[in-house]
Amino acid sequence: MQDNAYEQRRRTVAAALKERRLDCLLVAFSPNLRYLSGFTGSNGLLLILPDHSILFTDPRYTIQAAQESSCTVRIAKGPMVDDLIAAITKTRVKRIGFEPARMTCDTHESIQSRLPRNAALAPVTGWIEELRTVKSPEELALIRRSVETNSRAFEETLRHVKKGMRESDLAAELEYRMRRLGAEKPAFDTIVATGSRSALPHAQPTAARLQAGDLVVIDMGAFQDGYASDMTRMLHVGPPGRQNKRMYRAVLEAQLAAIDAVRPGATTAGVDRAARRVLTRYGMERAFIHSTGHGLGLEIHEPPRLGKRDKGCLRPGMAITIEPGVYIEGEGGVRIEDTVVVTANGCEILTPSSKDLYVI
Amino acid sequence: MQDNAYEQRRRTVAAALKERRLDCLLVAFSPNLRYLSGFTGSNGLLLILPDHSILFTDPRYTIQAAQESSCTVRIAKGPMVDDLIAAITKTRVKRIGFEPARMTCDTHESIQSRLPRNAALAPVTGWIEELRTVKSPEELALIRRSVETNSRAFEETLRHVKKGMRESDLAAELEYRMRRLGAEKPAFDTIVATGSRSALPHAQPTAARLQAGDLVVIDMGAFQDGYASDMTRMLHVGPPGRQNKRMYRAVLEAQLAAIDAVRPGATTAGVDRAARRVLTRYGMERAFIHSTGHGLGLEIHEPPRLGKRDKGCLRPGMAITIEPGVYIEGEGGVRIEDTVVVTANGCEILTPSSKDLYVI
Repeated sequence: MQDNAYEQRRRTVAAALKERRLDCLLVAFSPNLRYLSGFTGSNGLLLILPDHSILFTDPRYTIQAAQESSCTVRIAKGPMVDDLIAAITKTRVKRIGFEPARMTCDTHESIQSRLPRNAALAPVTGWIEELRTVKSPEELALIRRSVETNSRAFEETLRHVKKGMRESDLAAELEYRMRRLGAEKPAFDTIVATGSRSALPHAQPTAARLQAGDLVVIDMGAFQDGYASDMTRMLHVGPPGRQNKRMYRAVLEAQLAAIDAVRPGATTAGVDRAARRVLTRYGMERAFIHSTGHGLGLEIHEPPRLGKRDKGCLRPGMAITIEPGVYIEGEGGVRIEDTVVVTANGCEILTPSSKDLYVI
Repeated sequence: MQDNAYEQRRRTVAAALKERRLDCLLVAFSPNLRYLSGFTGSNGLLLILPDHSILFTDPRYTIQAAQESSCTVRIAKGPMVDDLIAAITKTRVKRIGFEPARMTCDTHESIQSRLPRNAALAPVTGWIEELRTVKSPEELALIRRSVETNSRAFEETLRHVKKGMRESDLAAELEYRMRRLGAEKPAFDTIVATGSRSALPHAQPTAARLQAGDLVVIDMGAFQDGYASDMTRMLHVGPPGRQNKRMYRAVLEAQLAAIDAVRPGATTAGVDRAARRVLTRYGMERAFIHSTGHGLGLEIHEPPRLGKRDKGCLRPGMAITIEPGVYIEGEGGVRIEDTVVVTANGCEILTPSSKDLYVI
């Protein structure tokens, strides 16, 4: 990302402070902070004022903060909040926006209790997250690269998958290849779940071995240059029987129907409904126990969410997952997931991997 | 961990509710929640009442929650807070302890605003974290195993390290071996920093290659069965010159002095001082820009912290890191770190890897 992209974003925020009746915005949540400053350290506070921004961090990041960000950098000698309060006092800001969904009660209290007279914290919910939902072409290029790394890691690993392999070893291979292909790390704990464990939507890999007749869920994602990818594919150990084939067909149809519903102006609940409608036809609606998808970018899960009760419409440039699934306790589960981007008149599926059931 | 270990911990908490003038304790922070319930899912709330506990989670974890925890499990159909409020109303609890350092302002507000009349949230700071600082023999066995996996991964990888290798590829090898040896995942983003980048205490691996004359910092840790390990070792590409040798000797002496200071009753600041004193003798005190160590367990960083300004004493059963370092901008840095456990009359170094400077 170019330096001026961050500066432009800060300028957008700074320009909108007044209409939100704020003198400044305090950002503590690290994906938001990175989005607005470029700083990737684990500990920081960003104060956006109308005409400049200050990044507070600790001495571990002295060199890195100056390299990554064009903000004024303040290195805290003691608690960072001391420096923040000093800056608030000096700049005489009164209404200080903060992110209540991203700040702990403790931090809030430690700032609140030391504000100068007349200054106050004002809650601002989802502003930066909302800005983040629509990706720039530069961000989409990064997501595309992350998606491609993820798929390549999957496909390279696939050649080595054998019956009898452990879930945990398969996960290790996937993550190793991901990294060798350029990812910083997995975007979340890689899921490899075989047999009846495939019915656990968020199963962690265990020492369980891939056995004949097993459905195997592989749900994996990478962070590359800070941007996430997310994909789920299914393996079958040996040829699938009728029931597993039917379950796979149902989920695939549901996934394609949901993708088909993705376009600018479509409601997030509408996309979810498209998947659910197919599964209802198969009598599997009650086995679909999560939402159809979520946004992704600097976080693996970010707005919009595509669930039954979610409100909101899709806009061009949004990057989202489409991932219906069915889960039958004691038997198994199927989930199929792509990363897609909303285009001017529909969507583009970024994930290049085939959606055939991979029989091993 | 055996089921009854969790139950025992909940009973300890339940028995102390009254003296803290609480009717119940609400736990939302996932390491605390896991410590008290055994549940490892990413989304949950735990309400500890005098005579029983309720674990709230979402439908993705229906099967897993029942498998992992002996608590009463409530699967939320809508927002989890709805079910929490219903339980609070039904049990008629009045004073509800919550963890302000672990709860966002938003969550606090969403609960607060819907409490029955007469019920109130009461802040409870660091209670569970304090319980967690002293590890049970069973927990220490898990930490030991995590430390051993970590060291083995390091030593196996070392055989393949060569001049010209990329930082990111070396990190990938370390993490791969960690996983193959039994870890679930790295306990934090593995640091591999070569040459002048070794002066960045929290450097992320890049495409930079190991070059002759480079100091290389490797800071790595594993999570195995939920428990963390943490180790830093230094490589040198080719034989080290006088300055790098001196820097290494200074840090090693500081590290050994700090370890020597670890015993029950020692203050955390005293251990930090022991390291700092050595570095002052070398004229390097100002290049040591972080604290000497931290506790670890279900989190990679947990109390106690061993810094200049930290208060508190060490107790037998605490697992901590000892990791002084010196960092010289533009040149390089050295850090040496072990995981140690406080014993009845001193400490045991868990990390088995040699602390010689590894020349490659």
